[in-house]
Amino acid sequence: MIVFDKEKVESTLRKYLDSSVDFILQVGGYILDGGGKRVRPYLVLKFASMIRGYNKEEDYILASALEYLHTASLLHDDVVDESEKRRGRLTANRVFGNDTTVLVGDYMYANALYLFSIYGDIDMIKNVSDSVKKMAEGQLLELKKIANFDTTFDDYYKIVLGKTAVLFGSCCYVGTALASEDKNLKENAYQYGVNLGVAFQIVDDILDYEGDEEKVGKSLMNDLKEGKITYPLLVVKDILNKEDKDFIKSVVLDKNPSVESLLKAKKIVEDYGGIEKAKADAESYVRKAIENLKDFPDNKDKQDLINLAHYIVKRES
Amino acid sequence: MIVFDKEKVESTLRKYLDSSVDFILQVGGYILDGGGKRVRPYLVLKFASMIRGYNKEEDYILASALEYLHTASLLHDDVVDESEKRRGRLTANRVFGNDTTVLVGDYMYANALYLFSIYGDIDMIKNVSDSVKKMAEGQLLELKKIANFDTTFDDYYKIVLGKTAVLFGSCCYVGTALASEDKNLKENAYQYGVNLGVAFQIVDDILDYEGDEEKVGKSLMNDLKEGKITYPLLVVKDILNKEDKDFIKSVVLDKNPSVESLLKAKKIVEDYGGIEKAKADAESYVRKAIENLKDFPDNKDKQDLINLAHYIVKRES
Repeated sequence: MIVFDKEKVESTLRKYLDSSVDFILQVGGYILDGGGKRVRPYLVLKFASMIRGYNKEEDYILASALEYLHTASLLHDDVVDESEKRRGRLTANRVFGNDTTVLVGDYMYANALYLFSIYGDIDMIKNVSDSVKKMAEGQLLELKKIANFDTTFDDYYKIVLGKTAVLFGSCCYVGTALASEDKNLKENAYQYGVNLGVAFQIVDDILDYEGDEEKVGKSLMNDLKEGKITYPLLVVKDILNKEDKDFIKSVVLDKNPSVESLLKAKKIVEDYGGIEKAKADAESYVRKAIENLKDFPDNKDKQDLINLAHYIVKRES
Repeated sequence: MIVFDKEKVESTLRKYLDSSVDFILQVGGYILDGGGKRVRPYLVLKFASMIRGYNKEEDYILASALEYLHTASLLHDDVVDESEKRRGRLTANRVFGNDTTVLVGDYMYANALYLFSIYGDIDMIKNVSDSVKKMAEGQLLELKKIANFDTTFDDYYKIVLGKTAVLFGSCCYVGTALASEDKNLKENAYQYGVNLGVAFQIVDDILDYEGDEEKVGKSLMNDLKEGKITYPLLVVKDILNKEDKDFIKSVVLDKNPSVESLLKAKKIVEDYGGIEKAKADAESYVRKAIENLKDFPDNKDKQDLINLAHYIVKRES
């Protein structure tokens, strides 16, 4: 789906990791070698080239900086969740320990901001550091809302902003700012990224309810098992009858719910139309994202960004 | 020793923590309530007022931002070291868990940079983000060098830069940049902070060898016990005879050395003149720091900064 000069992205990612401490290069290399679709660099590069017609060296450097921010948050996330595997490999915390993982994450955060101070400007730094604040806030709120049936739309939105949406937004903002000083364009780019990110997360939530386990690559109903209220449940939880509500509440509170309870909860959410409503809302966010592109020049890059938005809701993994 | 408007520093620290997630205010408040001498805000405020004659609101805000960076690094440090107590209270990781502590640290890092994007400029951000990189590098290097007798002066210097010196440097740099655009002044201010920080750390190392346990507030010979080569040993380790070298090597490698071995190692270091040499070098860094102030206006603030440098080597805790 995503077509761009990934080789140049990969080499830039390694080049600007740049530390006098060998160990950072070693740990950083391990993590970067773990792969990933590089959606964030893609967004930076596409927005810049949609406006300017081509990509400059700085685009690749700041695209790398945004991928470092993402990588740093994954590293800290793995420590926070005590994860064992990511993308089929042992997580950095398992290989190098929590101590090293936390510190390499800190290094990557700082290095990203440092690159922005050289190749970017203060307006980009304001946008990006605000996103990093919201990322930490969203993850903290998610921790607090585990096993809490009273999670609201406002909570959910803040959590999703932090998990995916604001960093997507910053990538689009930075890509635009690299090629234009137009405030309106930068703001629209940011909103495209945020809407895309929210749609992406809702689809993730749907896949956890009813994806194809083989394609998704992990067992389903994980979120509810962990006590997380995600979108399909969120949109029906206030219209459940007392019996169904009490049952689902009990599953949310249960630290180790049975497979049967999870399947029964899934059926209740489906029966009340939670999946359909979630799909409709994801599509609505995608439409908003595409609408945010209207002031940008019509060209191949714009078409790619429109296609990406459509792909987000159709994906099966 | 440190006299300044600490009340205003404390209220600014709380005001700009500023999050829509209550939990951050709660955890952040817990940490800030733990106290601290606020040396970093002091340095920012003193440099700005030495040049400008008084402090502006922005001075206090960026002084807070630098204290947030320090606090964030302490939070992550406590997770890295699995600490239980700091300044006589339970550490945040013990009270709120590793997950929350890592994320609140991330929030504080990001919030600091965000404040710099509003009240500072890109040149300050370059200096500060470079320091945060070096802080992570220094801590990682320290981890790698534990139980490693081949630690060099270059390793030690990088570790100390990361532990204390570069952030002291950034505080002085930012304080100066708030009141002047003179590149030479900013660079001298940075060097004052770095030299002060190195002296501070060497004195810390000396106190661990032969401080007054009650005044220092913790048991002595902790560094060597943990397998760390600090300054008094560093300056003698290449002139030890074979027997003494082999003995100290064995203590460095021992995961749980006896009190007797630690005391014997201490005596060897003293006998070779390690403590005297360390004191002389700390004083030399203090002289360099004071020399770095020569281009600044002579006034009460400058005298306070000179006194601070002298105090650093005389302190007993």
